[in-house]
Amino acid sequence: MNKTTKALVAEVRAGSRRAVARLITRVENQEPAAREALKALYPHTGQAHIVGVTGPPGSGKSTLVNVLALALRQHELSVGIVAVDPSSPFTGGALLGDRVRMQDLAGDRDIFIRSMASRGSLGGLASTTSDVVKVLDAAGFEVILVETVGAGQAEVDIASAAHSTIVIEAPGMGDEVQTIKAGILEIADVLVVNKADRPGSDRTVRALKQMLQMGSNGQPVRHHSRLLQADTQADGQRTDDADGWQVPVLATVAVDAQGIDDLVAALQDHRQYLLASGEWLARERARSRQEIERLLSAYFLEELAQAVPAARRERVVTAVAQRETDPFSAVAALVGQIKGEEVTQSGSVPGG
Amino acid sequence: MNKTTKALVAEVRAGSRRAVARLITRVENQEPAAREALKALYPHTGQAHIVGVTGPPGSGKSTLVNVLALALRQHELSVGIVAVDPSSPFTGGALLGDRVRMQDLAGDRDIFIRSMASRGSLGGLASTTSDVVKVLDAAGFEVILVETVGAGQAEVDIASAAHSTIVIEAPGMGDEVQTIKAGILEIADVLVVNKADRPGSDRTVRALKQMLQMGSNGQPVRHHSRLLQADTQADGQRTDDADGWQVPVLATVAVDAQGIDDLVAALQDHRQYLLASGEWLARERARSRQEIERLLSAYFLEELAQAVPAARRERVVTAVAQRETDPFSAVAALVGQIKGEEVTQSGSVPGG
Repeated sequence: MNKTTKALVAEVRAGSRRAVARLITRVENQEPAAREALKALYPHTGQAHIVGVTGPPGSGKSTLVNVLALALRQHELSVGIVAVDPSSPFTGGALLGDRVRMQDLAGDRDIFIRSMASRGSLGGLASTTSDVVKVLDAAGFEVILVETVGAGQAEVDIASAAHSTIVIEAPGMGDEVQTIKAGILEIADVLVVNKADRPGSDRTVRALKQMLQMGSNGQPVRHHSRLLQADTQADGQRTDDADGWQVPVLATVAVDAQGIDDLVAALQDHRQYLLASGEWLARERARSRQEIERLLSAYFLEELAQAVPAARRERVVTAVAQRETDPFSAVAALVGQIKGEEVTQSGSVPGG
Repeated sequence: MNKTTKALVAEVRAGSRRAVARLITRVENQEPAAREALKALYPHTGQAHIVGVTGPPGSGKSTLVNVLALALRQHELSVGIVAVDPSSPFTGGALLGDRVRMQDLAGDRDIFIRSMASRGSLGGLASTTSDVVKVLDAAGFEVILVETVGAGQAEVDIASAAHSTIVIEAPGMGDEVQTIKAGILEIADVLVVNKADRPGSDRTVRALKQMLQMGSNGQPVRHHSRLLQADTQADGQRTDDADGWQVPVLATVAVDAQGIDDLVAALQDHRQYLLASGEWLARERARSRQEIERLLSAYFLEELAQAVPAARRERVVTAVAQRETDPFSAVAALVGQIKGEEVTQSGSVPGG
């Protein structure tokens, strides 16, 4: 680690906003120095309460994140916000978001906001988000809100990296049961019906409570965390207390800050529950496992890039696209190249 | 490849529905035989027109896919439907979808429907979907509709593996511009305003047309395919014709099958455009590249599983979760194990 990076790490640890912003930019640009810095900061992470916030467009998610951040500040907690916008992978739409938010939250040194747009690469979003969270964690932010749009795979991935996940629904979004999907219930630690001053909100709250008990397909909801727990047998940390958390369904009117105190209390309860039940570590392990697999994949793809010239890699891609070879044979040939073996088997890559 | 798998491959190629269903189940269960079968079938893929269909809950997406399939059948085209439901990763919600659809489409031998729920693993959804599409392609289905929910990363990934992407919006979904996101415009080859008999549909059509010209942030929309094209320089297939496709905005009432003929025509036009412009190959290359990277990652993770005993891998995960080591050092140590090297550097994994 060079002197500049070392200084940057020290400044991040001291909580310098400028250093945090600079390092996050380097993380997003995937600079080698960012990796060194993340490595040095890692031992100082693990303190923050990471809260995922997700919900469909129109549920008032951004407003709720804003007022939740302000409420947490009233509890003397410092707050980092990472707004992930996977539906704007190509336009810089995320920047606009920053500007709008700043009107409410600017000037408070203990709130840090960063909007991120996806780079459109498979898994890239979850990876970068996780690293940005680490920077904020190491900088001492006590609660980190990770806001994601929609209900896709990215949300499930990001939720599995959070300690607590808030799922927001809005009432009166039509009678389609689709808007309250079973898969979303399973990642929720806290359910929020926002815009609760609108007609139909009682019905939505009741429906959600019922679905939590019954499941949308008549099966009881098996919470996501149960799946995480299945991962933990090896270190004996598995607990039988997994059924102990009852997902609360809260009604809020974010624009008027109604119901936000209950939400803050629910988050604090959930944090206590995680720590007392051992599930905090289970979630940390799930996150660590994901990250190790991700880094391993990245390592070997980098090795491929070193071992096989770009022109040859491109010819392999074209050969697969044109059905001259199949992907499995192509990968076998590339692996052979990485390992420095002579590839002679049939089905090897033409044009090499 | 054993005899049973060989027979299964032959039956799939002959278009046996039972064989297709059985192989898809094996693909979903990640059985080794499925891999062999996919390898054997791969040279026979590449004929189908793969069409992604995406849109928010409540836009009437499933109904539109149903009537679109019926309309394609009237053009004597055989149709495969893959309904991907990433928001139900854990319940069997997708099965319900199959049952509802079957009422309209059952009995037609040239329509094959499969609903899939995500397994919740990073990238797992896109990978399995891509393999299921290959099975249907090799079985001779001429158009394959891949229906996805929402507007997350999964949709972008799946869209990048389709030849043509239909994005559906419903009118009157409130005045939040959020419902028509710029990122969604960029993956659209054809835009559909469904439920066009509802008030406000004209306004939605106009807004979409305007956003196509302007972009939601004042920037002209840069189509996703332009990014794919940037990948193609190596084989000289890049074309300057990329601006040639004008994304049409169509109004439909799927429940009454209104506007569906125009949609079929738009899809056929887009297919012609792709073939004439060379962009068909560009998209095949993008898909091949994704798949090669995915298989390479899977290969090396499997190698890790072979080289490092499970108990030791679990200890590494715990050590990272407890901040006894950082993920980078852990991965360096694991790579050392795979390569059979002695790991002696500081920062290596404790408890090994």
